[in-house]
Order: sequence, then structure tokens, then C-alpha cells
Amino acid sequence: MADEAVQAEYIAVKALENGVTIIGLTRGRDTKFHHTEKLDKGEVMIAQFTEHTSAIKIRGRAEVYTKFGVITTSI
Amino acid sequence: MADEAVQAEYIAVKALENGVTIIGLTRGRDTKFHHTEKLDKGEVMIAQFTEHTSAIKIRGRAEVYTKFGVITTSI
Amino acid sequence: MADEAVQAEYIAVKALENGVTIIGLTRGRDTKFHHTEKLDKGEVMIAQFTEHTSAIKIRGRAEVYTKFGVITTSI
Amino acid sequence: MADEAVQAEYIAVKALENGVTIIGLTRGRDTKFHHTEKLDKGEVMIAQFTEHTSAIKIRGRAEVYTKFGVITTSI
Amino acid sequence: MADEAVQAEYIAVKALENGVTIIGLTRGRDTKFHHTEKLDKGEVMIAQFTEHTSAIKIRGRAEVYTKFGVITTSI
Amino acid sequence: MADEAVQAEYIAVKALENGVTIIGLTRGRDTKFHHTEKLDKGEVMIAQFTEHTSAIKIRGRAEVYTKFGVITTSI
Amino acid sequence: MADEAVQAEYIAVKALENGVTIIGLTRGRDTKFHHTEKLDKGEVMIAQFTEHTSAIKIRGRAEVYTKFGVITTSI
Amino acid sequence: MADEAVQAEYIAVKALENGVTIIGLTRGRDTKFHHTEKLDKGEVMIAQFTEHTSAIKIRGRAEVYTKFGVITTSI
Amino acid sequence: MADEAVQAEYIAVKALENGVTIIGLTRGRDTKFHHTEKLDKGEVMIAQFTEHTSAIKIRGRAEVYTKFGVITTSI
Amino acid sequence: MADEAVQAEYIAVKALENGVTIIGLTRGRDTKFHHTEKLDKGEVMIAQFTEHTSAIKIRGRAEVYTKFGVITTSI
Amino acid sequence: MADEAVQAEYIAVKALENGVTIIGLTRGRDTKFHHTEKLDKGEVMIAQFTEHTSAIKIRGRAEVYTKFGVITTSI
Amino acid sequence: MADEAVQAEYIAVKALENGVTIIGLTRGRDTKFHHTEKLDKGEVMIAQFTEHTSAIKIRGRAEVYTKFGVITTSI
Repeated sequence: MADEAVQAEYIAVKALENGVTIIGLTRGRDTKFHHTEKLDKGEVMIAQFTEHTSAIKIRGRAEVYTKFGVITTSI
Repeated sequence: MADEAVQAEYIAVKALENGVTIIGLTRGRDTKFHHTEKLDKGEVMIAQFTEHTSAIKIRGRAEVYTKFGVITTSI
Repeated sequence: MADEAVQAEYIAVKALENGVTIIGLTRGRDTKFHHTEKLDKGEVMIAQFTEHTSAIKIRGRAEVYTKFGVITTSI
Repeated sequence: MADEAVQAEYIAVKALENGVTIIGLTRGRDTKFHHTEKLDKGEVMIAQFTEHTSAIKIRGRAEVYTKFGVITTSI
Repeated sequence: MADEAVQAEYIAVKALENGVTIIGLTRGRDTKFHHTEKLDKGEVMIAQFTEHTSAIKIRGRAEVYTKFGVITTSI
Repeated sequence: MADEAVQAEYIAVKALENGVTIIGLTRGRDTKFHHTEKLDKGEVMIAQFTEHTSAIKIRGRAEVYTKFGVITTSI
Repeated sequence: MADEAVQAEYIAVKALENGVTIIGLTRGRDTKFHHTEKLDKGEVMIAQFTEHTSAIKIRGRAEVYTKFGVITTSI
Repeated sequence: MADEAVQAEYIAVKALENGVTIIGLTRGRDTKFHHTEKLDKGEVMIAQFTEHTSAIKIRGRAEVYTKFGVITTSI
Repeated sequence: MADEAVQAEYIAVKALENGVTIIGLTRGRDTKFHHTEKLDKGEVMIAQFTEHTSAIKIRGRAEVYTKFGVITTSI
Repeated sequence: MADEAVQAEYIAVKALENGVTIIGLTRGRDTKFHHTEKLDKGEVMIAQFTEHTSAIKIRGRAEVYTKFGVITTSI
Repeated sequence: MADEAVQAEYIAVKALENGVTIIGLTRGRDTKFHHTEKLDKGEVMIAQFTEHTSAIKIRGRAEVYTKFGVITTSI
Repeated sequence: MADEAVQAEYIAVKALENGVTIIGLTRGRDTKFHHTEKLDKGEVMIAQFTEHTSAIKIRGRAEVYTKFGVITTSI
């Protein structure tokens, strides 16, 4: 494992409804969905960028905590 | 062990009810649950990202202390 | 994988309408589209620069969160 | 020993009653209890993350000093 | 690829009219145009300096976001 | 000796009564007491984390100076 | 290519009239003109120092954005 | 000698009475007194942590200058 | 070329009259003039220290932008 | 010589009377006086920690400039 | 050439009269004059410390710009 | 030469009378005078710590510019 990986940045997502989806997209030549995590209302997930994930997509009503502040998905 | 691992970022979780669940998700090609820790009301857990954990999911009423501030799960 | 890659900067995009397009352009001698991601209204995407992506183009009504602040595409 | 280990972050715990328990959880593929330290009322313990400890659990009435501020366990 | 490349600085450009042109100029002994990207009104492009691009020229009405602030091209 | 060891963080303890005990706990797989230092009232001790000490326990009335501020043991 | 090159500092130039000239001077034992770029009124150019350019000369009415602030050429 | 040793942190002690004692405790598996320095009233001593000293004990009326501020021993 | 060279500090000079002279002096055992650049009124030059230039002399009415602020030559 | 040695921290001492003594104590297993410097009233001495000096003792009326502020010896 | 040399600190000198002298003193076992530069009134010179210069002496009415502020020689 | 040497800290001395003496003391096992520089009234000298100089003594009426502020020798 790359030594720096444990120090990668993380984001946090708080689900505001059931079924919020957090989708990890693959790093590398191809950008594909490689993991989907479902959150129920009120659950919090904290996730780092990794060797395998360089992009994250959030669907459903949620608060996304980033270095730019809190971004509320709006549906 | 990776030298930088001991200096990885940590978060803190304070359980506001019995049975709060902190779930570690595996780093790497597959993202799976690899550890589940239960907290009783009032207990505090402090956890680093590690070589094996790149995402953490919190279920149940709890305060999650992150670099973005305190995120209260809401149920 | 380059060790520093997991620590590359990221941006965030929030779609303000259906069909917002986030296009990754290839790093290297040739600059070509290598990935297109569609966002529906309200979805949020967080993306790092990678070994394969050194430029990102955003089409459609969206908020783009960067180190310069929020840039609203305007159509 | 990893050179950086001596510079790992530390937390502090002050027991507000007898029998406060500080539990070290193992780093690595398996997350198990590897050490339990009991504090009597008024005692203070200062502990680093180490090669063997990547998570710490606190039970009983105590103040936990972290980079997020003081978290008071509540029972 | 140079390891630091993914961490190079980026700028952002927002087109204020159709046909804004972003031109990448080659790094190295010769300074030539190597890529031209067209933006339509309202589109945003975010671009890093790369191993191949050490200068960027912007033509047409646009806002250019740099570490010096926003520079508005004026025509 | 690890080169970084001389630059490890330090704490300070000021005894507010005779017989304050500062206990060094061993780093490594086993966490055991490896040193006990007694302070008389008014004495000050300054101690670094070391290759052999990753946790410190303070018993008796004392002020403990840490990066979180001064923690007063209370008996 | 030197790894740090992509992280070299950049300046920005905004032309306030047609025919503004940005001249790159060679790094090394001899200091010679190696590239001349013409900007039309309103165009913006962003340029890094490179392995080949250690000095830049600006002729014609322009705003030069540097770490010292904006320097307006005056004619 | 370890290269970083000359850059280790230092503390300062000002004696407020004759016979103030500054005791260096050994780094390493055993923690023993390895040096005792006596200060007369008004004298100032400045001391670094070293390869041989990882803890310092101060006896007698003195001001101890540390990164936490000035700690006055009290007798 | 030394890798750090592209990241050397730069200064800026704005000529307030025709014929301002910027003289590069050689780094190394001998300190000699190795390059002379003439600026006309209103022109701006931005120059890094290089492997060959460790001192710069400015003659004629000009503003010299340095990390100490703007120094106006006075004639 | 250790490369970092030239960048070690320094302190300054200003003598407020004749005969102020600045004593360098040896780094290493033994802590002995290895140099004594006398200052006359009003003289200033600036001294780095070195490979040979890890502690400094000041006797006589003087101002000692440290990172903790100015400590005045008092006799 | 040492890689860091191009990033050494610089000072600036502005001559307030004709014949201001800037003298470079040699680094190394012997400290000798190795270069003398004359400035006429109003001229500005910017000079780095180098492998050959570790001290600089300024004679004549001048402003010396340093990290401590502007020091005006006074005659 | 040690690479870091050119980046060592510097101090500045301004002589307030003729005959101010700046004395360089040798780094290493023996601390001896190795260079004496005389300043006349109003002259300014800027000097780095070097591989050969780890302490500097100033005699005569002068202002000594250090990271602790300006220390005026007083006679």
C-alpha cells in the first residue's frame, strides 16, 4: 500500500433521508463505479480518497462535508 | 507497517444512546465491512484511518467529531 | 500508482439541473476527453485530479466548488 | 520501531469517577482489545496512537481531550 | 509521470460568451500551441499546469480564476 | 536511536502535593509500567514520549501541561 | 523533466491594448530572447517560470499580476 | 551524532534561590538520573533534550520556561 | 539543471524612464557582470535568481519589487 | 559537520555588568563544562546550540533572549 | 552548485549617495573580502548569500533592506 | 560545502561608533576567536552562522538585529 494513503483527505456525508447512495468511482484509465454504499436517514459516513477511488458521487438528500464547506444535495 | 500510519488522521464518536455502531470499511479493491464496534450511551471512541480502514460508517444517535466540526447523526 | 496521487486536490460539483456534464480531459501530450459523467439535479460529485485527468470541463447549470470559491456556471 | 512513532498524536483522559476504562484496540487486519487501563477518580492518562493501537475506547465518566476539544463521556 | 504532477496548481476559466478559447502552450525549448479548447457561454473549465503545458492563453470574454484573484478578459 | 526521537513532544507535570506519581507505560505489543517517578510538592518534571514510553499516567494532585492546556488532576 | 517544474510559480498578464509582447528570456549562462508571445487587447496569458525561462519582459500597455501585486506597465 | 539533535527543543530555568537542582533523566529502557546541575539564585540555564536526556526534573524555587508558558515551582 | 532552480525567488522591475539597466552579476568565486538588460519607460521585467545570477543591480529611474516592498531608485 | 548544524536555534545574551559568564555544557553521555566565555558590561553574544553544546548556563547580571522572551538573571 | 543555493535569502541595498560600497566576505575558514561593488546615488542592488559569501558589509549612506526591516547606515 | 549552509540564519549589526568589533567564534570542540571584523560608525554588517562560526560577540556601541528584536549594546 502506498504509505501516504492513510493520510489522504476525507469527506463526510450525512444522509437526510433513507437510501442515500455514495458511489466510489475508480481511479485510473477507466472511470467506473466500483462501490456503492447505501445510507439510511441520519447515518453518517466518512470516506477517504484511496488508491482505488478518486471520485465520489452522492445521490439522495444529504449533507456533504468538504473542505469547501457543507454542500447540501437538493432534490 | 507503514511509517506514516501512526500519524493518520483520527475522528471521535460519542454515543448518545446504547448500541451505536461504528463500522470500518476495507481499503482496497473491495470495500467491505471488516469491523463493527458497539458503543453504549456516553462512551467515546477515537479511531484512526488505517491500512485496513479507509471509510467509517456510524449508525445510531451519536456525535461524530471530524475536521469539519461535529456532525450529529439524527434519527 | 504515484504515491502522491491520493493526496491530489479535489473539486466538487453540484448539479442545479438534470444532465450536468463533467468531462475529464487527459493529461499528457494529447488532451482528449477520456470520461464523461452525467449528474442529475441536486447530485454532488467530488473529483480529484489524477494521473489521467489534468483538466475538467463542466457543462450545464451547476455550482463548481474550487479553491477560488464557488463558480456558478451560467446558462 | 518506526521513526515517526514517537511523534504520533496523543490524547488525554481525566477520570471523573473510579474505574474509568481506557481500551486500546489493535491496528491491523483484526481489530481486537489489546490493552485495558483503569483510572481512578482524578487520575490523568496521556496516550499516543502507536504501531499497535489505532483506536481507543473510553468507558466511565471522564473528560477526553482531543484535537476537537474536550469530549465529556456522559453516563 | 512525474509524481508531483497531480499536485500542480490549477486555474479556472468561466466563459462569458460562446467561443472562448483556452490555449495550452508547450513547456520546453520551443513554446508552441499544443492544445486549444473551446468553451461555450457559461461553461467552466479547470486546468492544471502539466508536464506539457507551462503557459495558458485565454481569448474571448471570460473570467480567469488565479491565485491573484479573478482576472476578467475585456473585449 | 531514532533520529526524530529528540524532537518528540513533551508534557510537563507540576506536583501540588508530595508523592505525585508519574508512570511511564511501555510502547509495543505489551503495555506495562516501565518507570515510576515520584515528585514532591512544588517540583516540576518535563518528559518526552520516547521509544519506550507511549503513555503516561499521573496520580496525585498535580497540574499536567499538555497541548490541550492544563489538566488538573482532582482528588 | 525536473519534477518540481510543474509546481513553479506563475504570473499573469492582461493586455490593455493590441500587440502587448511577452518575451521569455533564457535561463543559463547566456540570457537571450527565446520566445515572444503577442497578446491582443483584453487577452490574458498565464505563464510559469520553466527550465528554459527564468526572466520575462513585458512591453505594451498591460497589467502584470505577480506575488507583489498588480504592476501596470505605463506608456 | 543524530543530525536533528542540534534542533531539539529547549527549555529554560531561572533559579529563584540558591541550590536549584536540574536533573537529567536518561532516555532508553532504563530511566535513571544521569546528570545533576546546581543553579544559584538568579542564574539561568537553557537545556535541550538530547540523545541521552528525555526527561528533566526541577527541584527548588525556580521559573521553568516551556512551550506551555512559565511554570513556577512552588515550595 | 538544479531541480529547485525553477522555484527560485523572483523580483520585478518597472522602468520609469528609458534606458533603465538591469545587470545580472555572476554567482561563484568571481562576481562579474554577465548580462545587461535595457528597459524602456513603462516596461516591466520579472527575473529569478538563477544558477548564474546571485545578484542584480538596477540603474536608472525604476521601481524594484522585492519581498521587502517596492524600492524606488532615486536619481 | 552535520548539515543541519548551521540552522540550529540561537540565543542572545546581553551583559548588564562586567564578568558575565556564559558556560557551554557538553552534549553526550557526560555533561561537562567545555567552554566559558566572559562578557563585559554592555557586550552582546549570540550563540547557537552545536554538536558540542546542548546546554548553556548564564551567571551574572544579564538579559537572556530566548524563544520564551527575555529572561533577566537576577542577583 | 548546491541545489539550495538559488533559494538562499537576499537583501537589498539602495545607495543614498555616490560611492556606497557593498563588500562580500568569504565563507569558510578564512573570512576575507572577495568582492567589492560600488553603487552610485539612487542605484539599487539585490544580493543573495552564496557559497562564497556569508557576510556582507555596507559602507556609505544607504538603506539596507533585511528581514529585520530597513536599516539606514548613518554617517 | 554543506547544502543548507547558504540558508543559515543571519543577523545584522549597525555600528553606533567607530571601532565596533564583531568577533566570530569557532564551531566545534574548541571555541576560539577565528575572525574579528571592525566597523566604523554608521556601517552595517550582515552575517550568517556558518560551518565555522556558531557564536558571534559584539563589542562597542552597536545595534544588533536578531530574531528577538534589536538589542542595543550599552556602554
